[in-house]
Amino acid sequence: MERLSGISASSGIVMGKAFLYLEGEFPDIPRYSIQKSDTDHEWKRLLSAIDAAKAEIQELLDTSSHEMTKEQAQIFQAQLMMLEDEEFHGQMKERLETSLENIEWVVWDISHELTQKLIASADAYLRERAVDISDVASRILFKLLSIKRFSLADLKEDVILVVHDLLPSDALAMNKERVKGIVMDMGGRTSHTAILARAFEIPAVLGLSRVTKLINDGDTVIVDGNAGRVTIKPDKKALSRFKRVAAQINRISDELHAIRDLPAETLDGYRVCLKANIELPEEADHVLKYGAEGIGLYRSEFLFLTPGYPAEEETQYQAYRRVLEAMGDRPVTIRTLDLGGDKLLPNLQSYDEKNPLLGWRAIRFCLSLPELFKTQLKTLLRCSTEGNLKIMFPMISGIEELVNAITVVEEAKAECLEKGFPFNENIEIGIMIEIPSAAMTADILAKKSDFFSIGTNDLVQYSIAVDRGNEKVNYLAQPFHPGVLRFIKRTIDAAHENGIKAAMCGELAGDPMATAVLLGLGLDEFSMTASSIPLVKKIIRGSTIESCRILAEKIMECSSYQHVTFLVEAWMAEHFPDIGD
Amino acid sequence: MERLSGISASSGIVMGKAFLYLEGEFPDIPRYSIQKSDTDHEWKRLLSAIDAAKAEIQELLDTSSHEMTKEQAQIFQAQLMMLEDEEFHGQMKERLETSLENIEWVVWDISHELTQKLIASADAYLRERAVDISDVASRILFKLLSIKRFSLADLKEDVILVVHDLLPSDALAMNKERVKGIVMDMGGRTSHTAILARAFEIPAVLGLSRVTKLINDGDTVIVDGNAGRVTIKPDKKALSRFKRVAAQINRISDELHAIRDLPAETLDGYRVCLKANIELPEEADHVLKYGAEGIGLYRSEFLFLTPGYPAEEETQYQAYRRVLEAMGDRPVTIRTLDLGGDKLLPNLQSYDEKNPLLGWRAIRFCLSLPELFKTQLKTLLRCSTEGNLKIMFPMISGIEELVNAITVVEEAKAECLEKGFPFNENIEIGIMIEIPSAAMTADILAKKSDFFSIGTNDLVQYSIAVDRGNEKVNYLAQPFHPGVLRFIKRTIDAAHENGIKAAMCGELAGDPMATAVLLGLGLDEFSMTASSIPLVKKIIRGSTIESCRILAEKIMECSSYQHVTFLVEAWMAEHFPDIGD
Repeated sequence: MERLSGISASSGIVMGKAFLYLEGEFPDIPRYSIQKSDTDHEWKRLLSAIDAAKAEIQELLDTSSHEMTKEQAQIFQAQLMMLEDEEFHGQMKERLETSLENIEWVVWDISHELTQKLIASADAYLRERAVDISDVASRILFKLLSIKRFSLADLKEDVILVVHDLLPSDALAMNKERVKGIVMDMGGRTSHTAILARAFEIPAVLGLSRVTKLINDGDTVIVDGNAGRVTIKPDKKALSRFKRVAAQINRISDELHAIRDLPAETLDGYRVCLKANIELPEEADHVLKYGAEGIGLYRSEFLFLTPGYPAEEETQYQAYRRVLEAMGDRPVTIRTLDLGGDKLLPNLQSYDEKNPLLGWRAIRFCLSLPELFKTQLKTLLRCSTEGNLKIMFPMISGIEELVNAITVVEEAKAECLEKGFPFNENIEIGIMIEIPSAAMTADILAKKSDFFSIGTNDLVQYSIAVDRGNEKVNYLAQPFHPGVLRFIKRTIDAAHENGIKAAMCGELAGDPMATAVLLGLGLDEFSMTASSIPLVKKIIRGSTIESCRILAEKIMECSSYQHVTFLVEAWMAEHFPDIGD
Repeated sequence: MERLSGISASSGIVMGKAFLYLEGEFPDIPRYSIQKSDTDHEWKRLLSAIDAAKAEIQELLDTSSHEMTKEQAQIFQAQLMMLEDEEFHGQMKERLETSLENIEWVVWDISHELTQKLIASADAYLRERAVDISDVASRILFKLLSIKRFSLADLKEDVILVVHDLLPSDALAMNKERVKGIVMDMGGRTSHTAILARAFEIPAVLGLSRVTKLINDGDTVIVDGNAGRVTIKPDKKALSRFKRVAAQINRISDELHAIRDLPAETLDGYRVCLKANIELPEEADHVLKYGAEGIGLYRSEFLFLTPGYPAEEETQYQAYRRVLEAMGDRPVTIRTLDLGGDKLLPNLQSYDEKNPLLGWRAIRFCLSLPELFKTQLKTLLRCSTEGNLKIMFPMISGIEELVNAITVVEEAKAECLEKGFPFNENIEIGIMIEIPSAAMTADILAKKSDFFSIGTNDLVQYSIAVDRGNEKVNYLAQPFHPGVLRFIKRTIDAAHENGIKAAMCGELAGDPMATAVLLGLGLDEFSMTASSIPLVKKIIRGSTIESCRILAEKIMECSSYQHVTFLVEAWMAEHFPDIGD
């Protein structure tokens, strides 16, 4: 038996036989020198391979679009654009003429360079874009080499799909009825595979780095998408645990479904609000089935970074409208661009930073590019009459930044007035509290904000000075560190003293082990991945605010995160013995 | 007229004629292919050039050691070692045999690779080591090419030396009587040139990137080593300002010298302690002349990183003893290694981090290498009977780390007992407060610490989530941000409530504009670059604690750093009209 931990990309727990799919990888690429006089011939070979690849994608779009999600269709549109991209063509032509090597090698070499660059990026989103380049390149290479691609459509039995990195085309072709679980070397929570797995409710654990080397075809595998764990060849104990947990999850899942439309209210009548975090407009359609009472965090930068979504005003407008429409009169908080650092717009020059987490990003980035920022704000204002829209600024570190950002909002309002666009004059403007200096001066910031939303992921990183992505030190990134808890309490108290609401949209908001503590500290709104809502609601509905407040008081006396964790676990064991590991 | 800002490396203000010295750079290096049969001949040429270079250095050491500082002698010792280094020889031999190019080119190519790697490093110390490699390589190349090096010993007139990067050998040869100021493209505060300039009290502004391109030989140049500014071809206004400021500085300098042995006591009898920060043991000799009452921060990692100082127990022991001896019974606080991130020991594999400032460094690094850490602690304990020694841990983020570090101290004590080494049983153990979670839980940490020392540079960076080295965002790094001031106040208050002292060893402690505020907040000890002590003492001796406390109370009410700055400047203008810009 072997156990691996990865990224929990789609929830659920399942056991099955492994199907090791390595066909999605590149074929062997021949490499040889050519004569200068052959370059024309090679170039023509490439152009006809590109044409064939384009035809193949077009056919996919024509015949399978009914079973594609909108995101998938966009991926293929983006691939078509890449195949027609003049810069990409120019690059290959130049390399062909200078290297005098066969065109298969040129295509491989350039696409390899490009994907390596993306894979080395600090940003999860960019890393995951590498797979799009790979898909386009392998499509051209298969055509050049006249190899027919194997298809996952031919699966005849139920399997756990084990793959290095699932290409979008494989994902589309895949027989979803037969794939009961997915485990993958690559990928993160925002990869195509993760989005697809969640859409089809297939449990998935990604980012396992070498799982394809450890699993053999036909091995029994347990995929625990909740805990992000994969068990290979489980022993008796692991098997019986699997059966117990699976039964429990089915029971809870029915129960959770039953409370979907009930309010997030404690036994003694204290009411809070549960909302969803989304990254793409299409996700808004899915969150209601988990009982979300609104969108607490729409990360607008993902729209800007998604292939096929140019960041023009009209595209933005349609995307924001789509979310507002899906949510009816429920509140929708759209966070302005958290770009910068490694997440740069394609048309902006990258800026090499030694410490991107402490760098030029989010509100800093927007304030230094006021036209980009104002365009987004104007678009948001234009949408503000079509639903319950709130604007939120990321990474505010002090009052000066907030005042500067509000000034740009005022300018945007003036321009809307001038152009005759109606907008909500009283649109709420709030800020993320995710920087220690902001938490420390929350009382000052509250006087200029309509609401707070605590971003625990960054707040933990900056408070403890630890990059969560650094495996040598991430053991320090404890949200239950007394310092972090004091920042949270300080922020909530400052909000209430100034008559505004305190929300949280970091990971902690969706962690059932933190629900009682956050309730006790007075948090008004919890915003999280939609699928986490039912369990958090179950805890709220099964607690009294009284006992949560006593717990919160006790943990605020603790001097270490271990002590906090101990008290929280004891409380949970007493009140919710069936939840937790 | 043109004005440039750089790094203030040695204080003082001076005007003079520019002497553009470009001779220190590499000669033109020929490149040609050789036959395989020629490699032996080329190799022998190299060996005899190396021998000649060694003889040259040896002669320098023999004849000029009386006018060398100890650091300089060590630099040349390190160069001798490099010339004899087997790995360096092996690398050149291999490159010679594989590239089949002339030996001059091989030497240049390898040394260029090495220096480029160092220059690209995020760590200032490592970047500055590039100059040692350059010096050794150019020494060999001049021998190979039989070119005689030009010498700065021949300067006949007073000059402002303008240079790209001053090689250690040029620095040594230089006629210090004639060099009235130094401006340089490269270099930082810990570069050889900076240390030399401070030792000879030559005003210097370094790190100007392209000053050698902007200044012509013979141009009039003002070097303001206090403000880190260089003025090229000053206009009338700048000239008269220079005269005014220079006169003022001379006046103050005499006055400051006069108060050297007086206590750092306010007009109403409130006494604080002023100490010096040092990086190398030799600096301890100089700090007393500025009136330092002890060493508040000895950065022990510089010893480990200095060429010629292997980090063995005995070398450490001698270095710590030397500082203690120089300081007599004055307190000496030695900070344990702040290694890690980019500052790695030569024998440790480098660990590539996306955000080194949020990474594996300082106490995190030491706790993961307990033997290295314990060796340093044992050495410190062994020295603890020879002076007033205190130990300080960097980067403590929470109580768990502090408890773990104290456990290693206990183990080190047990080993000392076992071996019969006497040590001070009650040696004081304190911590740096430089991480927001530590400042936020200072009350908890105070119960396990004998003193605090606030590290404002890192505290500002983490509190505001801004890398001070990132020019796109460093405008945000304001020590007067109300959030930072609250962290400082919280730390001082927690110390006093728990009966321990609060010191500060970050840049703010030596900033005269902050002295009154820090006094008013209750800071007990200020530790800074020794040359800053007199001015800070002048402010303390000219103030009442009463008026400082009123100022501190007022600024704690401010909501922006601009407002704080405004109040502080007004206070200074009222009380010290002759200080400030």
